[in-house]
Parts: sequence; structure tokens; C-alpha cells
Amino acid sequence: MPVYTLAEIAEKIGGKVSGDSRIEIGGIAQIDEAKNGELTFLANPKYKAELDKTKASAAIIDQKVDVTPAIPYILVMDAYYGFLQAFTLFNPQEKLLRSGVHPTAVVHESAQIGENVAISGNVYISANAVIGNRTQIFPNCVVLDKTEIGDDCVLYPSVTIRENCCIGNKVIIHNGAVIGSDGFGFAPHEGKYHKIPQVGKVIIEDDVEIGANTTIDRGTLGETIIKKGVKLDNLVHIAHNCVIGENTVVAAQTGISGSTTIGKNVVIAGQVGLVGHITIGDGVQIGAQSGVSKSIPEGEIYFGYPARPIMKTKRIESIINNLPDLMKRIKGLEKTIAELQNQRADISAKK
Amino acid sequence: MPVYTLAEIAEKIGGKVSGDSRIEIGGIAQIDEAKNGELTFLANPKYKAELDKTKASAAIIDQKVDVTPAIPYILVMDAYYGFLQAFTLFNPQEKLLRSGVHPTAVVHESAQIGENVAISGNVYISANAVIGNRTQIFPNCVVLDKTEIGDDCVLYPSVTIRENCCIGNKVIIHNGAVIGSDGFGFAPHEGKYHKIPQVGKVIIEDDVEIGANTTIDRGTLGETIIKKGVKLDNLVHIAHNCVIGENTVVAAQTGISGSTTIGKNVVIAGQVGLVGHITIGDGVQIGAQSGVSKSIPEGEIYFGYPARPIMKTKRIESIINNLPDLMKRIKGLEKTIAELQNQRADISAKK
Amino acid sequence: MPVYTLAEIAEKIGGKVSGDSRIEIGGIAQIDEAKNGELTFLANPKYKAELDKTKASAAIIDQKVDVTPAIPYILVMDAYYGFLQAFTLFNPQEKLLRSGVHPTAVVHESAQIGENVAISGNVYISANAVIGNRTQIFPNCVVLDKTEIGDDCVLYPSVTIRENCCIGNKVIIHNGAVIGSDGFGFAPHEGKYHKIPQVGKVIIEDDVEIGANTTIDRGTLGETIIKKGVKLDNLVHIAHNCVIGENTVVAAQTGISGSTTIGKNVVIAGQVGLVGHITIGDGVQIGAQSGVSKSIPEGEIYFGYPARPIMKTKRIESIINNLPDLMKRIKGLEKTIAELQNQRADISAKK
Repeated sequence: MPVYTLAEIAEKIGGKVSGDSRIEIGGIAQIDEAKNGELTFLANPKYKAELDKTKASAAIIDQKVDVTPAIPYILVMDAYYGFLQAFTLFNPQEKLLRSGVHPTAVVHESAQIGENVAISGNVYISANAVIGNRTQIFPNCVVLDKTEIGDDCVLYPSVTIRENCCIGNKVIIHNGAVIGSDGFGFAPHEGKYHKIPQVGKVIIEDDVEIGANTTIDRGTLGETIIKKGVKLDNLVHIAHNCVIGENTVVAAQTGISGSTTIGKNVVIAGQVGLVGHITIGDGVQIGAQSGVSKSIPEGEIYFGYPARPIMKTKRIESIINNLPDLMKRIKGLEKTIAELQNQRADISAKK
Repeated sequence: MPVYTLAEIAEKIGGKVSGDSRIEIGGIAQIDEAKNGELTFLANPKYKAELDKTKASAAIIDQKVDVTPAIPYILVMDAYYGFLQAFTLFNPQEKLLRSGVHPTAVVHESAQIGENVAISGNVYISANAVIGNRTQIFPNCVVLDKTEIGDDCVLYPSVTIRENCCIGNKVIIHNGAVIGSDGFGFAPHEGKYHKIPQVGKVIIEDDVEIGANTTIDRGTLGETIIKKGVKLDNLVHIAHNCVIGENTVVAAQTGISGSTTIGKNVVIAGQVGLVGHITIGDGVQIGAQSGVSKSIPEGEIYFGYPARPIMKTKRIESIINNLPDLMKRIKGLEKTIAELQNQRADISAKK
Repeated sequence: MPVYTLAEIAEKIGGKVSGDSRIEIGGIAQIDEAKNGELTFLANPKYKAELDKTKASAAIIDQKVDVTPAIPYILVMDAYYGFLQAFTLFNPQEKLLRSGVHPTAVVHESAQIGENVAISGNVYISANAVIGNRTQIFPNCVVLDKTEIGDDCVLYPSVTIRENCCIGNKVIIHNGAVIGSDGFGFAPHEGKYHKIPQVGKVIIEDDVEIGANTTIDRGTLGETIIKKGVKLDNLVHIAHNCVIGENTVVAAQTGISGSTTIGKNVVIAGQVGLVGHITIGDGVQIGAQSGVSKSIPEGEIYFGYPARPIMKTKRIESIINNLPDLMKRIKGLEKTIAELQNQRADISAKK
């Protein structure tokens, strides 16, 4: 791990040092795990007291926390983000590929390759593909005809991208992910399914990350669009003509059916299923394994199978959880009423 | 896009022209999106009125719709299918691969390669494999020993097929799909799991389409069979010794456990799970995310977790949705009965 | 298929022959399918009577079954395991790869390759990787920098393993599986997600089997660990920093979220989802499609969405299944009570 002075770190994470800014820091860890010579952070006032016990030599402190540590510290606007920045500083991603085209890579003569691009072994770049500057393509990736990839992208091993797709800048695609496979579209006729040609494309904007073995189908006509800053986890399925809004996060094994539009800043947990042709509003959150068959308005939190507003699902779940007791209560009522009826009959008989 | 006369289109889609058959058509679109010079279609009487407003220069009309358009039209038996045929005409699939074996492909000398086959870069074809005529194999695919692939197939990038499998004609397999991986079979003995050798194979019949990153396991003994015309979406899992009947459609992320048999013309939505060793009858439909643990008779529509006949699931779901109200009703009953009991006690006391 | 004498089979599976041990056996099958010249087995007393009808020439008999077959037999402690051993004897896995490095494989000069290793076509082995003795690597696999793979492993086609991972001995990894992809970790800051570097690794211990297109993410810091004897099916997702205990089995399409710890000898069915940061005790069993959001103590059997103890889920499910009837009963109660109230009013009025 590299070593930085506190002043250097403060400069890189955009904070202000109090105390000795010349001390050397050789690592970063949580408040209860940090050792002498390391940096820690305090973002949550709840853990204030931990500051007195930490072995760390310095701390990143959130402006919102009212505390004056005994150790030197860096004051920042957002201590968790400051921690992430410092963490990245101490844990730089290893650079595994060198610029240049590996002799076993196949790069079509009509492909345009930018500067300082790394194209590793057994990669296949087809005709008229475009690869932007500093993009790294790991072994055994395939980029088909006319697909354009921007600057500073990383394609991990065995990523395959079909023809005519468009990938922005700083996009990270993990092993085995598939971009631009045919949408699942067939017209039934006389008991058979006839393929509807899938002649659209996939557009992936800047700063998107796509998980391992995730699949994104091309549009039937037009585009499937993954907007700026979207993060998709592993084994996610995005069908033809979906639009995923900016800075939306989708956890593993979720599937989004054809022509569904997801808003901005949406959070979708794992194994969720969404039917086709619906619209999910900005800022919506959807809980794990939910089954979403209708559009959801902006800002709502939905959960369940079927997906409902989360408070309703929780209320229903708690009733369901008590159904065995409820059954007893209903049996009790039936018994009581039968008794009341008998008594009524008695009264009548006596009259 | 190519240009055709209305007569040429009518001939290709098997319909009869009314009006000027010499007009030239340069594209096809939906009735409200079509432009001058384009063709549209009317399959549903509901949209009849749209015909007066469309900017299209001609239309494909379904015989079942009682309408006489002002613009030239082609009368067909099934307008949606006619549209698909015309759409395909105007949107021909780009031919991306040229016939021949790419110099970086590895083709074992004992492999039999048909005529006009395209084998692209970094493909690996193993001993005694057979590749039929006009089949196209995209970069980085692997076909292991003795696997036979028929005519006119397309294997998109990174498809891998294990040994001894058998693929029919006109089969399309999308990126990263796996055919012939070992079934998941182990015998527990003294706290460990011991592998049961998976020595069967996978048979895929004609006109099947298999989605990206879908996995189809080989039979333990005998075969896993995907019959004629089956369409599997992305990330589907078919376990060992399953049989999927003709013209059955399975949507994304569905999993079918070992030795389960699915009938013909079945429709299975996304993220459905089926246990092993059951039988799904012909023509069955299963809703999204259903959990199927029992066989389903022919023609039924099932839905839910657990899967039940859809009308029953919908009835139950609507009751569940109203459980909070039901709780109030039950509390009301309890209160009323308590009052009745008190009154009864009063009556007795007064007597 | 090979031919063995009954004595040879008995020796290999560790049993004792009664009857003619010199007879030759040319295959093995279930009791109702075995033919003359074949071996069968009896593990379950229930099928005792089948022994009289079988056409098999010999049988493997479980010591726990009280029976004396008319045909020669091998007595063993565990007839099902004996069957598995004999089955393996008659169905040896074909050896598809020859030792040596295929001329199209890329093996970095700093990689350490053991003895009798097979590295097939278009494989990429990066700097400082270590491949143990007798390990077989099928076409188009990728092993990145400093990853170590033990002895007697099999990597089927297109397996990709990122840098710094550690794979034990006798590990089998099926087509397209991904080991060591980045965990899904981001810190939100000013409406965007910022990547948390994933600098940990994946450790896979001995005798693990990993299904096709399964993905195992590396630790953020520290490790994701798959312990001895674990079996993962196809399309499973294991997130960063999970620990899967010894001899645990996970069926297809299950997803385990970050930092969750699974005990030993756990059985998780297909399409189960587990949230992050929980602990599943040793010996737990979890039914298909369950949604697990809380830790489960040792030895429990859980099922459902949400997952509950299976008996409770079954009780609740049976009540839910009868909800339409329950509704009728409640309506009946309401009617009866209304009548009782009216009668009460009558009584009061008459008084």
C-alpha cells in the first residue's frame, strides 16, 4: 500500500486538516479496526464515542458531526464519500493490461482503435467497430460490426457485444455480459412462432457498470437505452426497447420485460420481475423478489408478489403471518354464535 | 431500406392487391406512425377509424376486418403475420459473416464442415464435430467432440456446446448460451456429495431459438430434449433430462428442474420455477414468477406462488389485498358478539 | 461399455459377493430396466418384490434390507452409493483433452504450469498464474494474473477467472462461469453512485463444483469463500464477501447477497433469494423460490416468501388456499349476527 501525508490526503479528498498535517498514513480502516499509522472516518454521530478508543492516527470527520477528535483530522462535507475516496487512494485498481493489441487478437482493418487502447489475447474486433482512447479489452471479448465503444471503458473477459451498439465513456462491463442479443419477439401463426427481426440496437451511456453474465437485448426497432450512471448487478436481464433512467441501480437476477421504462434514481433489489410496457417513476424503490405488473408512480416504495406499496404489503404480511390465530378466532366466533342461537331458541321455546 | 412495389409485396406475403399495385413502398410502420410512401397494417377492427387518418400510402388488411380503405391495400388471411413478413422484407438481417474458416479458428481435422459454412475468429471446433451447410458460427464459440449441428444455424459469439450433443436445422443460439453442461446430480454419502457422472446428451430440434446466457444441461443418462420450434429467452435454466414440447415458449430467467416434461404449445412467463419430475400438459400457460410444484393438466392457465388455476389465484389475491378490511370486519363481529352475549346475560339476570 | 466380473465390481465398490462371483457384467440399470447381463441395486426395502421380477444378472444389496436374492449379489453398507460407484465404473467420463498446451493458447511466460496439464485452444493464462498438475482447461477459458488453480481441476469452455483468486484441487467449473467479478458496491454522493474498489478475492476450496454461467463476486476487501465440497448449480449468484460452508448445495438461479454466511451441509433449492449480512446455520434447508430476509438457526427447514419454518408456511398456505371459503363463513357469520341483533331488537321491542 502507498503512503501519503495527511495533507496530501486532505487535498485529494477535498477537506481541511486540523492538527499535524505532516503525519504519514499507510492505510485506511473502520474505526474499530484501524491500526496505528492508519486513517479512519466518522460519518455517523452515533459512533462519536468510538473516536476516543480508536487506534487510528487520524480521522476523516463529517462536518455534520459535532466532535473535536484528539487525533489529527480532515473535516469534509460527506465523510462516507471522503472515506471512499481515500479508500480508492490506498487501494488503487491494479493495471493488468498494457496498451497495444495482443498478437492473438483479431482486429479488422476497418476498425478504428483509439490511443493507448489495450486489446488482449483472443479478442475479436469486427469491421467498422470503434474503440475509444484508453479503453481496456480483456481476453476473449468480442465486439461486432459498427459497434462503438467510448473512452476509458473496461470490458472484462468474454464480454460480447453484437453489431451496431453504442457504448459511452467510462463504462465497465464484467465477464460474460452480453450486449445487443436479439429481443424475444415472435408472431404466432398457424401454431408456430415466427421470428420478428430484431433490427434495433443498444445504447449505453457514460459511467454505466454492467454485472457478470448480465444480458441486454437490442431493440426490435429503435433502441434499448441504459442511461448515464446506471449500475446493473450480475445475471440481470434487460429486454428489448427498455429504457433505464439515469443513476438507477438494479440488483442481481432482476428481469425487466420488453418496452418497460424505468425512471431516474430508481433502486430495484434482487430477483425482481417487471412485466413489459409499464413505467416506473423517478426515485421508486422496489423490494427483493417483487413481481411488478403495473406502473408505479414517482417516489413510491413497492414490495411483494404482487408488488404493492410497502406499508400495505407489510400490513398484509403481518395478517397472513397470524392467519392460524385468526382461524381460531373465527372458529371461536362461530361457536359463540351457535351458542347464542341455541339460547335464542331456548328463549323462544320457553316463551 | 429496400423499395418494393405493392404488387411485389403482395406476392411475397401471399395477399391480393386492391387499388394501384404499382406504387412504390419504402418502409413499414404502425398505423399512427407510418409516413407517406410507407405501408401499414390493420389486424384489429378496433382501429378501423385510424385508417382514415393514416399517412401511409398502402395498408395490409385482415380479411376478418370489414373495411374498404381509401388507399391501395393488400388483403390477407392474417394481417399481423403479413405485417411480420413485410417487416422482414424491409428489415433484412445484415449478413455479418462471410463463408469460410477464419485463420484464427481451430477446426479439428476430423470435424466435418458443410458447404458455405462461416466459422469466425477464435472459434474452436473439436474432433468429429459436424457442422451443417450454411451454418454461421460467430467469434469465440466452442463446439466439442462429436457434437453435430445442422444446416442454416446461427451460433452468436461465445456460445459453447459440450460433446455428443445434437442440434437440428435453423437453430439460433444467442451469445454465451451453454448447451450440454453437466446435470446437477450428486449422491450423498457420509456427509459429502459424490458426483453422478452425467453421460447423456442434449438434443435440440429444428427451428429452436435459445437466448443469451441460457443453460441447458445434458441428460444424466439419456437426453435433454428441446423439440421443434421451441423458443427460450435469456438466462433460462433447463436441467438434465427435461423434455420441452414443440412450439413451447419460455420467457427469461425461468428454471425447469430435472426430468420435468413440458408439453406442446405451452407458454411459460419469466422467472417461473418448476420442480423436477412433473408433467405440464399441452397448451398450458403459466404466469410470471409462478412456483410450480405439481403437474398441470392440458390447457390450464396457472399462476402464483404456489401456482394455482389463475382464477383461483386472482380470487385469493383479491381477498389478500383486502385482508386489512377483513380484519376490521372480524373485530367488528367480535365486538358485536360480545355485546350480544352481554345483553343475553342481562336478560338472564333480569329474569 | 466396459465389462467386469462381479468379483471385480465388488472389490471396487467395497462389498461382499454371494453367489457366482465370476459372472460378467456389462452394464448397470434400475431394477425394472436392467437387462440380462446387467447389474442392478436395491437400497429401499419397499422395492424388495421387484427383485423376483428383474432381468438383471446380479444386484447390489443394502445391508439394511432383509432379503436374499435368487441372483448373485454384492452386499454393501449403502447400496445407493454402491450403485453410484458401479455406475461411474461403467460410465467413465470421456477424456476429451490431451496433455499439453494448444498452439493457439496464450500462456504468459511467468505462469507456472504443472505436470500433465491440458490447456486447449484459445485459452488465455495471464502473468504469474499457477495451474496445478493434471488440471484440464477447455477452449476459450481465461485465467487472469496471479490466480492459482490446484490439481485435477476441470475448467469447461469459456470459464473466466479474474486476478488473485485461489481455486483448490478437484474443482469442476462449468461453461461460462465467472469467478472473481467485482462486487456490487457503490457509495451514493450527490445523486450519483461512486464505485467502491473491489480489491478482495475469491477462494474456492477442494471438491467444489460450479454450474454453468454462475457468477461469484470477489470480496470488496477480504474474501468470498466457497468451502470444501460445495456444489453450486447453474446461474447462481454469489455476492462479495459471502462464505458458503462445507458440503452445502445450492440449486439453480439462487442468489446470495453480500456478506451473507451460509453454514455447512445446507441445502438451498432453486431461485431462492437471500439478503445480505445474515447467517444461515448448519444443516438448514430452504425451499424453492423462498425469500430469506433474516438469519435462520441451525437445522431448521424454511420455505416461502417470506421464508418461515416450513410447517408454518404450509399451515398458512392451506388457510390461504381456503380463503374463498373463509370469506363465505365470515359473510355467514355477519348475516347470522345481524339476524340475532334483529331478534334481540324484537325481544326488546316486545318487552
